[in-house]
Amino acid sequence: MKILIINGPNLNLLGKRNKEIYGSISFEDFLDELKFEDMEILYQQSNIEGELISEMQNASVDGIIINAGGYTHTSVAIRDCIEAISIPVIEVHISNIAGRESFRHNSLIAPVCIGSIFGFGLRSYEMAIDYFKKYGA
Amino acid sequence: MKILIINGPNLNLLGKRNKEIYGSISFEDFLDELKFEDMEILYQQSNIEGELISEMQNASVDGIIINAGGYTHTSVAIRDCIEAISIPVIEVHISNIAGRESFRHNSLIAPVCIGSIFGFGLRSYEMAIDYFKKYGA
Amino acid sequence: MKILIINGPNLNLLGKRNKEIYGSISFEDFLDELKFEDMEILYQQSNIEGELISEMQNASVDGIIINAGGYTHTSVAIRDCIEAISIPVIEVHISNIAGRESFRHNSLIAPVCIGSIFGFGLRSYEMAIDYFKKYGA
Amino acid sequence: MKILIINGPNLNLLGKRNKEIYGSISFEDFLDELKFEDMEILYQQSNIEGELISEMQNASVDGIIINAGGYTHTSVAIRDCIEAISIPVIEVHISNIAGRESFRHNSLIAPVCIGSIFGFGLRSYEMAIDYFKKYGA
Amino acid sequence: MKILIINGPNLNLLGKRNKEIYGSISFEDFLDELKFEDMEILYQQSNIEGELISEMQNASVDGIIINAGGYTHTSVAIRDCIEAISIPVIEVHISNIAGRESFRHNSLIAPVCIGSIFGFGLRSYEMAIDYFKKYGA
Amino acid sequence: MKILIINGPNLNLLGKRNKEIYGSISFEDFLDELKFEDMEILYQQSNIEGELISEMQNASVDGIIINAGGYTHTSVAIRDCIEAISIPVIEVHISNIAGRESFRHNSLIAPVCIGSIFGFGLRSYEMAIDYFKKYGA
Amino acid sequence: MKILIINGPNLNLLGKRNKEIYGSISFEDFLDELKFEDMEILYQQSNIEGELISEMQNASVDGIIINAGGYTHTSVAIRDCIEAISIPVIEVHISNIAGRESFRHNSLIAPVCIGSIFGFGLRSYEMAIDYFKKYGA
Amino acid sequence: MKILIINGPNLNLLGKRNKEIYGSISFEDFLDELKFEDMEILYQQSNIEGELISEMQNASVDGIIINAGGYTHTSVAIRDCIEAISIPVIEVHISNIAGRESFRHNSLIAPVCIGSIFGFGLRSYEMAIDYFKKYGA
Amino acid sequence: MKILIINGPNLNLLGKRNKEIYGSISFEDFLDELKFEDMEILYQQSNIEGELISEMQNASVDGIIINAGGYTHTSVAIRDCIEAISIPVIEVHISNIAGRESFRHNSLIAPVCIGSIFGFGLRSYEMAIDYFKKYGA
Amino acid sequence: MKILIINGPNLNLLGKRNKEIYGSISFEDFLDELKFEDMEILYQQSNIEGELISEMQNASVDGIIINAGGYTHTSVAIRDCIEAISIPVIEVHISNIAGRESFRHNSLIAPVCIGSIFGFGLRSYEMAIDYFKKYGA
Amino acid sequence: MKILIINGPNLNLLGKRNKEIYGSISFEDFLDELKFEDMEILYQQSNIEGELISEMQNASVDGIIINAGGYTHTSVAIRDCIEAISIPVIEVHISNIAGRESFRHNSLIAPVCIGSIFGFGLRSYEMAIDYFKKYGA
Amino acid sequence: MKILIINGPNLNLLGKRNKEIYGSISFEDFLDELKFEDMEILYQQSNIEGELISEMQNASVDGIIINAGGYTHTSVAIRDCIEAISIPVIEVHISNIAGRESFRHNSLIAPVCIGSIFGFGLRSYEMAIDYFKKYGA
Repeated sequence: MKILIINGPNLNLLGKRNKEIYGSISFEDFLDELKFEDMEILYQQSNIEGELISEMQNASVDGIIINAGGYTHTSVAIRDCIEAISIPVIEVHISNIAGRESFRHNSLIAPVCIGSIFGFGLRSYEMAIDYFKKYGA
Repeated sequence: MKILIINGPNLNLLGKRNKEIYGSISFEDFLDELKFEDMEILYQQSNIEGELISEMQNASVDGIIINAGGYTHTSVAIRDCIEAISIPVIEVHISNIAGRESFRHNSLIAPVCIGSIFGFGLRSYEMAIDYFKKYGA
Repeated sequence: MKILIINGPNLNLLGKRNKEIYGSISFEDFLDELKFEDMEILYQQSNIEGELISEMQNASVDGIIINAGGYTHTSVAIRDCIEAISIPVIEVHISNIAGRESFRHNSLIAPVCIGSIFGFGLRSYEMAIDYFKKYGA
Repeated sequence: MKILIINGPNLNLLGKRNKEIYGSISFEDFLDELKFEDMEILYQQSNIEGELISEMQNASVDGIIINAGGYTHTSVAIRDCIEAISIPVIEVHISNIAGRESFRHNSLIAPVCIGSIFGFGLRSYEMAIDYFKKYGA
Repeated sequence: MKILIINGPNLNLLGKRNKEIYGSISFEDFLDELKFEDMEILYQQSNIEGELISEMQNASVDGIIINAGGYTHTSVAIRDCIEAISIPVIEVHISNIAGRESFRHNSLIAPVCIGSIFGFGLRSYEMAIDYFKKYGA
Repeated sequence: MKILIINGPNLNLLGKRNKEIYGSISFEDFLDELKFEDMEILYQQSNIEGELISEMQNASVDGIIINAGGYTHTSVAIRDCIEAISIPVIEVHISNIAGRESFRHNSLIAPVCIGSIFGFGLRSYEMAIDYFKKYGA
Repeated sequence: MKILIINGPNLNLLGKRNKEIYGSISFEDFLDELKFEDMEILYQQSNIEGELISEMQNASVDGIIINAGGYTHTSVAIRDCIEAISIPVIEVHISNIAGRESFRHNSLIAPVCIGSIFGFGLRSYEMAIDYFKKYGA
Repeated sequence: MKILIINGPNLNLLGKRNKEIYGSISFEDFLDELKFEDMEILYQQSNIEGELISEMQNASVDGIIINAGGYTHTSVAIRDCIEAISIPVIEVHISNIAGRESFRHNSLIAPVCIGSIFGFGLRSYEMAIDYFKKYGA
Repeated sequence: MKILIINGPNLNLLGKRNKEIYGSISFEDFLDELKFEDMEILYQQSNIEGELISEMQNASVDGIIINAGGYTHTSVAIRDCIEAISIPVIEVHISNIAGRESFRHNSLIAPVCIGSIFGFGLRSYEMAIDYFKKYGA
Repeated sequence: MKILIINGPNLNLLGKRNKEIYGSISFEDFLDELKFEDMEILYQQSNIEGELISEMQNASVDGIIINAGGYTHTSVAIRDCIEAISIPVIEVHISNIAGRESFRHNSLIAPVCIGSIFGFGLRSYEMAIDYFKKYGA
Repeated sequence: MKILIINGPNLNLLGKRNKEIYGSISFEDFLDELKFEDMEILYQQSNIEGELISEMQNASVDGIIINAGGYTHTSVAIRDCIEAISIPVIEVHISNIAGRESFRHNSLIAPVCIGSIFGFGLRSYEMAIDYFKKYGA
Repeated sequence: MKILIINGPNLNLLGKRNKEIYGSISFEDFLDELKFEDMEILYQQSNIEGELISEMQNASVDGIIINAGGYTHTSVAIRDCIEAISIPVIEVHISNIAGRESFRHNSLIAPVCIGSIFGFGLRSYEMAIDYFKKYGA
């Protein structure tokens, strides 16, 4: 099984800036530490909305895990992409977006994903991978 | 580790009504099939908002998993309870609430939980239990 | 044919308090005076939202007539219940809720009922019973 | 007793267009089949808002049953008419307007009527006539 | 100088219904009692929005005084008409619309009129005629 | 192929008033100049909402082109009519309604039409006719 | 008969600034030119909300004409004053406030006045004085 | 004089959880310390909305002091109860609800109570009792 | 202990106008009748928002009781003042503002006061003084 | 005459994904089939908002036809671009955006285009090209 | 060049209260320390909205710098004044108003000023003076 | 000291298009003319939201001056970037955004910047550079 993890804007800063908040581990290191047998994990990050779309369009995988960062709340285009491709997508967030500023409460992407997982830190990704592993895509 | 699963209104109908939608398995049967070593899973269901509150107040457990059903979107009282007790709580939903009627998009409870998992059917519960098992409460 | 009438909060006060507004007849007396041949009318009242739900879940009847009182405008849980059970439900109100405070204009329950009857006093119930009698449930 | 039934825009299409939805019976045929002793039922239909108003102003009847169709949600003028005349008016709708598009949820007319009946198909009219017959206007 | 007074829906009821509110004088009698030298006052009333428009389009007068009744708050079409014709228009209302239901607070017509006069009973019309007489159209 | 063009309120003023804005050509002259082989173009204009509805109900044509003028933004009744008849309808506007006052941004009619064309002056009509000619109704 | 005219903030600039807009005549000069037999016209202007209130509280007159300027749209305090004193008050505005910025469309004061007159320039005041003269206060 | 104090959801946790916020004294202990001569103070607490209603319906007291907790902002049913019974009710809150989350700013109950007291900690109750003692119910 | 009572606009009319509503006692007389040992009560009233601010800035007292009248709902400036000074402030209102017009439901001042007391008539002030006396400022 | 067609995000999927919805023809094939004499049609597609802007800034053409896809509803930046360049722009959409989710009803781009055409499938583009051909840019 | 700095309510407290927030320097001392050659700086502060207006009306200066404090968000009257006088005005704020409570996000004054500077502490004033010095008024 | 100026979409058109509005000087020429001793000014422009983010993430400077153009009002992602990096950022705008269309009134970026300067044309940039020069970053 092949899974693509897509991270949106500013998630390349994990482990590099604001370590007291986001921890001192980069996303790449986090992925390296994960061990999922029989799973191939691909990883893409981009600050550019349209590149996130292109990557999902071109992905040849069984499932996608997306953290669209700030685009979560404003991107009709990413939503349209998820709806158009036939790959199952899970939405994840590191922080509890329901408990932050009001403009973060609404996810334009959630309605077209299988489901959403947020608030569990980097573990949100792990739970999504685990889902695909256990139940298939 | 001791975990309490609390189900809100109408979730007692799982497996009994609308089987084509919710499946033909009751929640009790679903729990029986789960096997989590070293985990004790308690289960409570009530249609009454205040009883859900009382059960959480009286719970002597390491973590709580709540599906507040229709009270998710309207209950300041359940939110206050979760905020007041010192037990970590995870919010789960069977369906993808973000993709349903607009009055289901907002969860009053989410901001005071650790995190939320929705859209994965009964597996949402399983992922929450798994979280507690792997990472502690 | 068996019909369940369910009354929500404060409707137990009919004929006991504010007689100048609600009349001096209690709901029980009103029911006693009704004469519907070949119809069995069951009656339940509760001030507790969750009990109204449990009563509808457990009802073994051909049709339900509900006046959810103040829960009409706030209860996603009662709506979910009506949607889940397979019994036809008619919504009634004694007063003309469209002509009262703005928070009473919206009924969360109406969309999942067969239809609604309001503004006709206790006769609203009578018209609903009559509907079931004439047209079946 | 003399009752005027007033139908607003597009209700002249009943039984003629979209038969699978509205049935194959025209409103005139529906009225013919009704038998209410000691009741004279007058019937007017117009697609023109102002004609509905004129008809109600000129009516010399004991009660009015109105289905204002699309004007239900936008007509302050029809509301003013109902408020100005001294004849009791009942509002009816064939469909369950609470379960349709959001712009159909609000009735400007309801607050100035005795009461409302909606969702019961053509039977909504029958229930209104029955009300006038049983309880007077 | 020739002035057209246009009254919208239900204003034909003045002096006929609800006399305790609107007085016992009809609009025609009110006009007869007025004495404006060198002024010709034409009068039209219609319950039909489109007729009000046609009358203003066809008017060959120096000024128009309009009380659009219930269409005041909903008619983009009447607004468009006033904007299109080159005759100055004054808006009047008998009652103080600012002090009634909230849906009467906004006038779609006011922005395209010279000015508005409301709250002075039938005198509102008289003040408008007086304005045209004193200052020209 | 037979096409009905229906114009709503104030569109009879084209070429007669405000020539600097709407041009000096009347709609009738505009139609005369058009040459569409094998197409019969019928034309109706009315300032009355209900007459627009009646004309569409009675039309025996292959397609309808409607410019509902000011009723575009307020008429649930015209929307219901378009939805009820089985004739394909195209919505047109002379001006760019998206660039005018905010109450003109929303069209209640657009969702039940095949499509909309606005901002191209009288050419909007021509494009709609052309569509029916090229692709059938 | 004694009438008090009260002008709010910036109306002291009439005839002094922006003459192309407001004309070159000051309010004092405008008043001098008016000739109303048997009427005593008092005049007060203040830029201070609370002074407008004090002046109305202390006024010993038969009627008040107020142009509250910018306070029209924000002052609950002036509204309370008008409601508390027993003197009839007419609201006037020089410009057509309905045709300006949206924050000027709502008048907090209008509901507690007899009526409103706006859009007629300085003539709005004259019409108000005329009203008191003709009909008494 | 007999006064009933009714506490809503989660107020049974006072002095037991979050002592740093709510203090280390339970509500029962707080009541014991109070000394009001000639006053009998009854006390009820429930997490269940409908039980709060039933308790007020059944109360045979001179006055009621209610802290409805989270139900304050959502319960039309409790409001209806207060309006229906003939006992004077005072609303109290421990915290300053105006300074907390926006969903706590509106009290559905306040309009039907005599008055409200909030922000003074447990002293809010004391002030309410004092009011009844000094001025009667 | 020294307490300053500050009354906002129109409260100087107490006992002078609308006696049937506000009673026939002036605020000064009300204060004279109060007897609080060891308490010095200062009193200021102004119709001017900025004077209320200056008085609070210059006050050398232990506590302030403010009834800001109509400024309660609109004054960011008074709020800023209360937040800036280090004196504890209690907000009072004579009437039950939650039960009046919707623009009176929100208090901009409440969040920066210790607490609020409203609906108890002049007794609201007395309860506030009593609070300061019993518990200190 | 030279025309640039610009397609926004996900429109590169036409004919490749969801063929049952969008048809089995790619946009490139659609363009190849079009035959417009004396017209040069350039074509650009990008998933990246800023690239759409750059392409329009750099275009040396007589007219632009844009389908901004999901950016239609959120992009102030594309709007600013269209307003800044001196090339006439027509907005097109394949689907009837007025009949889809509410967040698709508003186009930020429409007000700065000549006009809009939507709902006619790929023919929307053809109609726009036709417009430029017939009437010039 | 002559510049007037106008400070609104509570800005007289700078350096006197809340020193930890606003610093220990008063505004007068801050002005004394500034050295702008060939510039005359006048300074006015008032807590009274109307006095701020009068001061601007009477100012005989080349430019005005205003910090309207709490009136920034509510004063139509100050806005009208700035629009009426012919002196260029710059708006400044000490704090970053965009990052504070939502009722501080909107400035009614900004649209009629040349420009706005906020968030730079007392330096905001200095930057505004510098602007006038460098570029003239 | 090293400062990065970042310009968002369409700002590359300065001096090239719409010269009558934006002047005939390009941003590069504007920068060349500036002379700030001891200051190194870097400059980046992009039409792509994500590139603006990447440039700020990678910047090794003492301060950033950003004019995010159309992204100002819609970009949660740029806001997140500014919040994440530890470099102080000043927001500038050429035009007075408070005086333009309502969708330009809100800046998502302002709350996480030190401060904002808008309305002063290209001088807004100069004032920001000056700030960094005088007070450090």
